[in-house]
Amino acid sequence: MSLASFFQPRSIALVGATERAGSVGLAIWENLRGFAGTVYPVNAKRAEVCGVRAYPSIAALPEVPELVVIVTPAPTVTALVEEAGAAGVRAVVVISAGFKETGAEGTRLEAEVLAAARKHGVRLIGPNCLGLMNPHAGLNATFASSRALPGRVAFLSQSGALCTAILDWSHDQYVGFSAFVSTGAMADVGWGDLIRYFGEDPHTSSIVIYMESVGADAAAFLAAARAVAAQKPIVVIKVGRTAEASRVAASHTGALTGSDAVLDAALRQSGVLRVDTIEELFDMAEVLAKQPLPTGRRLGIVTNAGGPGALATDALVLGQGLLAELSAQSMAALNAVLPQSWSHNNPVDVLGDADAARFAQALRIVAGDPGVDGVLAILTPQAMTQPTEIAREVAQIAAGFGKPLLASWMGAQCVQEGRGVLNAAGVPTYDYPDEAAHAFVRMREHRIRLTLLSETLNAHAEDDDVELPLVGDMIDAVLKSGRTLMNEQEAKQLLSVAGIPIVETRIAYTEDAAVEAAEAIGYPVVLKLLSSTITHKSDCGGVQLNLMNAAAVQQAWRLIRDNVTHVHGLAAFDGVTVQRMMTQKGVELILGASTDAQFGPVLLFGAGGTLVEVLKDHVLALPPLNHALARRWVEQTRISKVLHGVRAQPAVDLSALDAVLVKFARLLQHERRIVELDINPLLATADGVVALDARVLLRSGL
Amino acid sequence: MSLASFFQPRSIALVGATERAGSVGLAIWENLRGFAGTVYPVNAKRAEVCGVRAYPSIAALPEVPELVVIVTPAPTVTALVEEAGAAGVRAVVVISAGFKETGAEGTRLEAEVLAAARKHGVRLIGPNCLGLMNPHAGLNATFASSRALPGRVAFLSQSGALCTAILDWSHDQYVGFSAFVSTGAMADVGWGDLIRYFGEDPHTSSIVIYMESVGADAAAFLAAARAVAAQKPIVVIKVGRTAEASRVAASHTGALTGSDAVLDAALRQSGVLRVDTIEELFDMAEVLAKQPLPTGRRLGIVTNAGGPGALATDALVLGQGLLAELSAQSMAALNAVLPQSWSHNNPVDVLGDADAARFAQALRIVAGDPGVDGVLAILTPQAMTQPTEIAREVAQIAAGFGKPLLASWMGAQCVQEGRGVLNAAGVPTYDYPDEAAHAFVRMREHRIRLTLLSETLNAHAEDDDVELPLVGDMIDAVLKSGRTLMNEQEAKQLLSVAGIPIVETRIAYTEDAAVEAAEAIGYPVVLKLLSSTITHKSDCGGVQLNLMNAAAVQQAWRLIRDNVTHVHGLAAFDGVTVQRMMTQKGVELILGASTDAQFGPVLLFGAGGTLVEVLKDHVLALPPLNHALARRWVEQTRISKVLHGVRAQPAVDLSALDAVLVKFARLLQHERRIVELDINPLLATADGVVALDARVLLRSGL
Repeated sequence: MSLASFFQPRSIALVGATERAGSVGLAIWENLRGFAGTVYPVNAKRAEVCGVRAYPSIAALPEVPELVVIVTPAPTVTALVEEAGAAGVRAVVVISAGFKETGAEGTRLEAEVLAAARKHGVRLIGPNCLGLMNPHAGLNATFASSRALPGRVAFLSQSGALCTAILDWSHDQYVGFSAFVSTGAMADVGWGDLIRYFGEDPHTSSIVIYMESVGADAAAFLAAARAVAAQKPIVVIKVGRTAEASRVAASHTGALTGSDAVLDAALRQSGVLRVDTIEELFDMAEVLAKQPLPTGRRLGIVTNAGGPGALATDALVLGQGLLAELSAQSMAALNAVLPQSWSHNNPVDVLGDADAARFAQALRIVAGDPGVDGVLAILTPQAMTQPTEIAREVAQIAAGFGKPLLASWMGAQCVQEGRGVLNAAGVPTYDYPDEAAHAFVRMREHRIRLTLLSETLNAHAEDDDVELPLVGDMIDAVLKSGRTLMNEQEAKQLLSVAGIPIVETRIAYTEDAAVEAAEAIGYPVVLKLLSSTITHKSDCGGVQLNLMNAAAVQQAWRLIRDNVTHVHGLAAFDGVTVQRMMTQKGVELILGASTDAQFGPVLLFGAGGTLVEVLKDHVLALPPLNHALARRWVEQTRISKVLHGVRAQPAVDLSALDAVLVKFARLLQHERRIVELDINPLLATADGVVALDARVLLRSGL
Repeated sequence: MSLASFFQPRSIALVGATERAGSVGLAIWENLRGFAGTVYPVNAKRAEVCGVRAYPSIAALPEVPELVVIVTPAPTVTALVEEAGAAGVRAVVVISAGFKETGAEGTRLEAEVLAAARKHGVRLIGPNCLGLMNPHAGLNATFASSRALPGRVAFLSQSGALCTAILDWSHDQYVGFSAFVSTGAMADVGWGDLIRYFGEDPHTSSIVIYMESVGADAAAFLAAARAVAAQKPIVVIKVGRTAEASRVAASHTGALTGSDAVLDAALRQSGVLRVDTIEELFDMAEVLAKQPLPTGRRLGIVTNAGGPGALATDALVLGQGLLAELSAQSMAALNAVLPQSWSHNNPVDVLGDADAARFAQALRIVAGDPGVDGVLAILTPQAMTQPTEIAREVAQIAAGFGKPLLASWMGAQCVQEGRGVLNAAGVPTYDYPDEAAHAFVRMREHRIRLTLLSETLNAHAEDDDVELPLVGDMIDAVLKSGRTLMNEQEAKQLLSVAGIPIVETRIAYTEDAAVEAAEAIGYPVVLKLLSSTITHKSDCGGVQLNLMNAAAVQQAWRLIRDNVTHVHGLAAFDGVTVQRMMTQKGVELILGASTDAQFGPVLLFGAGGTLVEVLKDHVLALPPLNHALARRWVEQTRISKVLHGVRAQPAVDLSALDAVLVKFARLLQHERRIVELDINPLLATADGVVALDARVLLRSGL
């Protein structure tokens, strides 16, 4: 069922409508009176409400209302939903509080209400919400004290209290809405439903979300976001970045993948823009809806003063944007129209005495330069400046211009009219030029995010019929033996079967066998503790490197055995693995995975070695991946610069690395019994990529 | 001379006063008319200006004016300054443009003007500026079209164009000024003079600076800032963060110390708060002037809604602040006054129906908790909320409260009155709670910065009579040999003489000598290229590690020789150094220094090894250091966590590290012929700190 009955109903019944002063029932009743369709008060105790005939029940209404709004106490709600459902109603908003948020009894009540709704195919918004508005239909089914202006932003808020402040602020800032929805507890209708509905809604240009939790169905949210984000910007502020409990983690990956970081990765790959402040929330929604996205990161700046141009430049470059280099042709054209002492560079300072004509000529030249991906016009009011006239010129240039055009008209009173002209022309204006440059950078990021989104959709399609039967068999075998932690040898074999290269490794249960294995592999070798119980081998002296001959291997065997049994007892020592010592120059990486309760498998890539948790150079991603996504993922880390080759370090085989990442993602996507997987180090060299160590933790009984 | 004659003159002469419409001379004349003292127009061609008797020259005036403002063309200015100086004037503002900014001829003129001023002991503001205002004296000696409101901020701007926008905006925001100064080219009066003057000015509570360059006298600027910053906040926005030319650098340190990063370090150690946006510039000036600084980073939050509290928490924790943990006593007190369903935690959610009394009770309890270093009150207007009444309660609590108290009254129209009440009580208000939390974090940072400042003043005092005669002798010797690049052995000896431990290192010019040195030192050893011309030894295969016996040393000798001569020719190979291979577990650090044209020696500390430029984990500082500063410096890096011990890595000897840093700073402070110095790696272990490699570049002829 579409949600149209919530936002475009022909008729509405308000159950709990009343005349009691200060009551929610009265506030909503009064707000509903602006609605063009029919509104029925339902109240078993009253014959009329504010002069309108009231009905004792939903069943008693002269027609089946398309939308029912309930404000009566929590214990009454289940029966009312039953009644509405039986009467044929398919859309119910439950304003009433007193459910899950109050404890066990409320949780039970909420489940009951939901069951009643499901039974009758009723969709339900709430409970415990402020209600909803559709300003284009004159619909205000909330108890807020002011109403939203009509506009093109669909605002969805999980905090009712915040709604009032946002409404108040939106009047001040002339921000209008296609819908204003307080989602409440989201017992039924959740983010996925709402995003899909407003994705189709012709009055909506952008979707803005204040989120406290992803809700019960993270997958539905992401799927809806992926379906809508390329057409309409979805901008989210999600609180609780830092609220996550600190966890005791058995693996590096486990320690590094907090749930908020996972959400971040999920949003990024789904084309959703996440912002950190309320200010940016509405600003970015406006900019993304009004302006085309830049195809590159080169900004052209036209300004009538040097200082503000420098402010914008700083913000631009700090945000990884670039100052556009103007073509020789543009420079010549600017020389022809500007006074001799113009800046002769980007930012193009047209000087303090610039009139509208001069400003416009320069702006046209910069805007037309093929090396410019977007333009920022800055005006600071000086003696000769014509803020409104120049704004009109900018507005004309903006019409039909295929690149983003932003403006900063600095000051207050004397630029107000000019700002109005720009806003009317769809040119976003900023109080300060640094904010405008920052917005350009964010637009550029959003374009990259949308590319990522389309690759993610591709990867999903490609990944459909992968099967990994051998992997399944190996996991079965380990679980059957009663263990969930694979030993190093098993873990490496698992990777090998999944197509990920591993270093040649042999198990030795005796000192002699260790020497034999070393002779077979060839010196130098590495000896590592083989243990089913110990996780971090190097922490307890369980790794001995660069062993050149049999004597060194024997010595290392004894050292490891003594180190380990001294601390952990003899049972922790199963033997050693013997592997070739890699003497090639290479880069140590980490490739890991853990499992998130809401999002499933989460992948981690970054700088490896023993200091990963200190260096914190890693980025998360969700499977599936393809080569394009893998490459972008790698390039978000600082270590990627080393992978391309620096100083004495040659470039590594990046295609091989991409291939390993894709196979790794596939393994995690299709074998959900892997709870945690660390490959650390994953050695990348000019000749390829190889896993030097691995640990795998399984979940039994799935 | 104090600058009082500029800002508190008894009389003013305007040279170039005129009636010509649209002229700067007329604009200033009109602006000057509000001034309470005497104002004389000077114009050789007119008997009167706007009805006021004009004089043909400064000499012809009936008294010596205390301040002379000049607006006549550049070529006339030298003679006018001469004339003013001869007449006994000591303060001149040159508004006129046409000097340094126009090229060689203008630069010559500017030097001439300055010489004239110096000759007569005249102080000069400008040229090429908008002028200055002192609203408390009714003084407006600018050609701006509006005047500053009286207030307590001294605003100093290097951009005249920006002044107009700031003035316009300040009216909108009710920001007032104790002075408004357009500094222009700063030929004479510079940042140092102005900061010292406003540091003493009783009308000024904070100093706000828009800076494009530090100017000719960086030392004077820093000295003034250090003298004033502890008493009055100095907030700076400096543009050009990213404008620096990319440099070809011979050392890691050289590549990592851009001039903006150096300025950052200088400001940090001088107690100056640097911000990135104009918005923050005035906001922080206000907050720092109105509120006490927090002694810790624990914020208590009282709010009437959960969502905004979560927004503030995120911003707080992202900025390294902490949510205060409330004492058992506070929790009991809150339980006694709040409804049962309050949040039972910090943020303290007093619920949407809270009236002024309930809000105030909770706020008093949180504010009084000894575990709370500052308090944020958040209000979002809901049905029952009393924004103004609650603001009055907050204002009362703020009076005489020794900790910072900030507020966010969310919304617009309906909280406006409440915001006014808070502002009047000196409680800064923010549109959004995240901004308020961010401000708290910045206040905390500023307190740390002031501690740093006081330690810097201590370090300067301690460092006064250090002498390093042996160091000087060694440098003399190298320079006398016609070289500026020390070889590794020389560089290490230099460090050793300066008190910095080095690893035992011997030079070998032949293969046999290398073996001999190795036997003397004891295996394992490292062989490294000895070369007066090659900088990065490992880039060309010039470093061979872990050599276990004589045969290995011989092989390594040949390998290094062949590697180096193959690429760089035989002349690059002087021999090798032989040193002990450090087998202890340790952390590789970098300690470096380079020379900044404005600030002199600049120190760099961070994660070392071959990947320093990729990891970018380093922080700059200026000498001198003491132990407290050294420790704080170290703790700004990510690698400092490793130094405290992680996993298998034991904690290193931090006191030894501090001592090395202090000695290193002393070396650079007192031996200015060292242009660049890299110690990389500096190995830190549990037993001490030792320089494993060093390179020193000298400057001849100083």
